Amino acid sequence: MTTPQISIVQRLRKSPFYDATVRWGARTFTVYNHMLMPTCFASPEADYWKLVTDTTLWDVAAERQVEIKGKDAFELVRRLTPCNLSEIVDGQCKYAPIVDERGGVINDPLITRLAEDRFWISLADSDVLLWAKGVALSMGLDVEIFEPDVSPLALQGPKSLPVARDLFGDWIDSLGFFRLRETELDGIPLVVARSGWSRQGGFEFYLLDAARGDDLWERVMHAGTPFGIAPAAPNTIERVESGLLSYGNDMTIANNPLEIGLDKFCDLDQPFDFIGKAALQEIRRAGVRQKLVGLTMGEERLPGNENWWPVLADDGTVLGKVTSAVFSPRLQRYIGFALLATEHAVTGNVVRIDSAHGELAGRVGPACFDIPRA
Amino acid sequence: MTTPQISIVQRLRKSPFYDATVRWGARTFTVYNHMLMPTCFASPEADYWKLVTDTTLWDVAAERQVEIKGKDAFELVRRLTPCNLSEIVDGQCKYAPIVDERGGVINDPLITRLAEDRFWISLADSDVLLWAKGVALSMGLDVEIFEPDVSPLALQGPKSLPVARDLFGDWIDSLGFFRLRETELDGIPLVVARSGWSRQGGFEFYLLDAARGDDLWERVMHAGTPFGIAPAAPNTIERVESGLLSYGNDMTIANNPLEIGLDKFCDLDQPFDFIGKAALQEIRRAGVRQKLVGLTMGEERLPGNENWWPVLADDGTVLGKVTSAVFSPRLQRYIGFALLATEHAVTGNVVRIDSAHGELAGRVGPACFDIPRA
Repeated sequence: MTTPQISIVQRLRKSPFYDATVRWGARTFTVYNHMLMPTCFASPEADYWKLVTDTTLWDVAAERQVEIKGKDAFELVRRLTPCNLSEIVDGQCKYAPIVDERGGVINDPLITRLAEDRFWISLADSDVLLWAKGVALSMGLDVEIFEPDVSPLALQGPKSLPVARDLFGDWIDSLGFFRLRETELDGIPLVVARSGWSRQGGFEFYLLDAARGDDLWERVMHAGTPFGIAPAAPNTIERVESGLLSYGNDMTIANNPLEIGLDKFCDLDQPFDFIGKAALQEIRRAGVRQKLVGLTMGEERLPGNENWWPVLADDGTVLGKVTSAVFSPRLQRYIGFALLATEHAVTGNVVRIDSAHGELAGRVGPACFDIPRA
Repeated sequence: MTTPQISIVQRLRKSPFYDATVRWGARTFTVYNHMLMPTCFASPEADYWKLVTDTTLWDVAAERQVEIKGKDAFELVRRLTPCNLSEIVDGQCKYAPIVDERGGVINDPLITRLAEDRFWISLADSDVLLWAKGVALSMGLDVEIFEPDVSPLALQGPKSLPVARDLFGDWIDSLGFFRLRETELDGIPLVVARSGWSRQGGFEFYLLDAARGDDLWERVMHAGTPFGIAPAAPNTIERVESGLLSYGNDMTIANNPLEIGLDKFCDLDQPFDFIGKAALQEIRRAGVRQKLVGLTMGEERLPGNENWWPVLADDGTVLGKVTSAVFSPRLQRYIGFALLATEHAVTGNVVRIDSAHGELAGRVGPACFDIPRA
């Protein structure tokens, strides 16, 4: 991959874990929600193997929170997503796409209910704070909407549970998936959630005091040492293997959730009138024009994509685009996602890909891959 | 400055001028409105001297446009800003801060009237598209709000006029400041504006077809060769010398326009009821608690700031923060901006600065500097 340098200014906010990540050897960064976020420590593949084999610590403070608080908080949060939140309980989070009035995806966050009148939206990369404030403004709702001092740190990988047990005690075993609990660690205030942007298992620690970032990072690293912990970051190889989509890469505001396989997180028939309901119902009725699929593109060990690549029919007609591509070390295949015209989004179909590495042949399949255990 | 590497993925959108800037030697980038933007070619100081002496070409496509179109477009645009737009005419732009209901600055864009029912908001770094859409949603306005295929390229520096004359002809001489005209150049569709984020004079070319980015860049470079044109970028040294603020650096949503010297762009007494009017009137009545000032901090040639630095009183009380700091080659002084508690924001006052380069003494003055001509 091309890796030009980034000029650091204060506009690119530094995470509470920034100094720690630099000290621990972060080599590349991205910018996410106006914040610097490490993307790689050893190498993308070395980080990947640590993630799928042991346990890894990620600075994901750039997954900023929008807090919505007040009498009408639940009313507003439900307006923002097609996800049915009617049965969400305190201490639970849900993957809940946020869409505009046309059904275009604005973000694909986790929404957490902290209390009946207090929610967090844990963001992918877009200013949902402004959307939520704009929506609330015209509705005259009794809510406060702000970015709280909350910075997630993710512990991900198959050996994460014993590390978390060492840190917090045995109660961690009974913390359910997408459940949270407020606690502290050596006086560091945090919320522990069983969640994270991989399919390797693990936790997210929502630090509640930015001044304690360095302390928390070192404390977790120390506890993880016997389990082979390594500093790492959200890993593109693993997330593509695992069928996890990335906002801005695999979807933008030009996409609706139905065409990218997020229909299972949308309840279009719920009685509540969320934003985009009529638009999504109409899209469902008419049928989606394109679909997100998985692609298998040969056995060559190629670098990932830095751009969307056109997908072509035999006669050169553009059928869609590759949105993500990586070499999977466990499949020993070059794999990825594509948005394809519905009639071509059929398992087994073979398409031409106009990639940066020359033309590739891609076989269409589901957007989740059957990965052998490491 | 620290310059870690950035990992390139398609989420960090590429400008239509991206390939050209790489070819012409862009060394560092930032991310702005989810798009890669070059920040330096030769060196910050070499780029600066070309800007203040000759003419320079900048890829500022990351100043994305929000287009607001339709019968109620003017109604919505006026709601968004305390700037009085009642007399704006076709082909005119205005520097118009956008604030939320509390008066907090969401962005400090140029707003352009293309026609009675068609406006562009030329953005600093935040998703105003989402704010505008959210505000419009419940108001039932007849508007379309979207990001058009429009990418600004800036020609800045004292020798920009002859370059623009060579490109477009003599009519360019009569194009007024903050005035625009739609035209074309060798079949490349664009809007030419006399504007730009420096005080060295020049133009912005709003490219209307992303596929022609490379053509436009090369065409302008070619025309600029006799005038010593160089590729460059928005330059922090020049903009601080010139008293130009940077959103995310010198102000955030936590600031109101009155405390950062943008009161001259706000008409709080206009009859129109813009968002934040009551809040800003109350702030004016109560008086601002802090003010943006200029600082002169000695003669040492120090690097710029990567963080906000605390400003202290003699007894160590925190009085505010330095928001931007650069060494000015023309003043031969280390200068910058600070947000200071109002009672300390007095010209001639001397404060202590807890900088990354050790403690500095800063003398308070106006947030614009008296720069000798080069």
